[in-house]
Amino acid sequence: MLEELSVRTPNQECLVEITDQVAQVVRRQQVESGTVFLYVPHTTCGITIQENADPGVQHDMLMVLRRIVPRNDQQYRHIEDNSAAHLQASMMGFSHFVFVERGELVLGRWQTLYLAEFDGPRTRRVLVKSVRD
Amino acid sequence: MLEELSVRTPNQECLVEITDQVAQVVRRQQVESGTVFLYVPHTTCGITIQENADPGVQHDMLMVLRRIVPRNDQQYRHIEDNSAAHLQASMMGFSHFVFVERGELVLGRWQTLYLAEFDGPRTRRVLVKSVRD
Amino acid sequence: MLEELSVRTPNQECLVEITDQVAQVVRRQQVESGTVFLYVPHTTCGITIQENADPGVQHDMLMVLRRIVPRNDQQYRHIEDNSAAHLQASMMGFSHFVFVERGELVLGRWQTLYLAEFDGPRTRRVLVKSVRD
Repeated sequence: MLEELSVRTPNQECLVEITDQVAQVVRRQQVESGTVFLYVPHTTCGITIQENADPGVQHDMLMVLRRIVPRNDQQYRHIEDNSAAHLQASMMGFSHFVFVERGELVLGRWQTLYLAEFDGPRTRRVLVKSVRD
Repeated sequence: MLEELSVRTPNQECLVEITDQVAQVVRRQQVESGTVFLYVPHTTCGITIQENADPGVQHDMLMVLRRIVPRNDQQYRHIEDNSAAHLQASMMGFSHFVFVERGELVLGRWQTLYLAEFDGPRTRRVLVKSVRD
Repeated sequence: MLEELSVRTPNQECLVEITDQVAQVVRRQQVESGTVFLYVPHTTCGITIQENADPGVQHDMLMVLRRIVPRNDQQYRHIEDNSAAHLQASMMGFSHFVFVERGELVLGRWQTLYLAEFDGPRTRRVLVKSVRD
């Protein structure tokens, strides 16, 4: 069954935790063992997995992404002025999955699921489908 | 069932739409609700999802990818002179999925599926497997 | 069934082949036709697919990734000094899949599965789940 999360992104560029929302879908659907598939139906935000122990990681990742994909460039042709966001989102990816065991997401010790926003603030959607083993 | 698409890429670097070809597989296999998995069996092209409303987006994405991963570099060791294409393809990714509902691909309003070519022109293959819910 | 591979990474940055280990799981589980899902439960290494015919490809990929995501930067805030590894891993991705046909991984002629290490040397884990068609 396909479910939809709604995610509010507070800034133009930010990583917003979605682990709890995804875990709730898994719990509500009573998936004991399986795989949960995540999909972002947008073109200027993606999904990634990172640590959240030190907020410095998010700062540094977004800083370097902004440096290598500059927001403004005289050679850009896209009329909406958000070309950088499109490429940054493609670099993070739109479709990801996580395993489920004993009713819980199988994440590494430092892993957190993030919606990676590059053209916010907005309200974004994340599609979630869990498949039982 | 695994199906194979054939995709002609017209330039060395380009994004070639494959949404219609993928949707046809889903329709032909009469998948009502499920997930379609896409895989590129190459190392110098990948798959990504982006908008196609304004061709400027594609131009800008390819321009920045070319700038951050230069085609020629004195320190490159790879004998085939396409190291850039390998890294660019890895950045886009080789395995992606899209959900299917009511027999249609569940894409966001602006989303189009692309084969991202970085070492064309060539004829490329995309493997497609649909799985019913 | 979820299995776990153990992968020793010899250097700080390197691509370590995991194709054989994954193929062994598929064989041991006697998957004739299906899909094998791979997941890295870490935040400073990822998975990618590339050629292994010429080691120059790996050298060049890692060289460019190091150049665009510098290991040291005065503006980095992360206290562990491995911010570059976090972003590089996110660029490669943590969840990937490969199809299986006739008991074998369906890889392109030049494709090899790699764990992409950016903060080694370490012993890393890769989670593997095969799903039958």
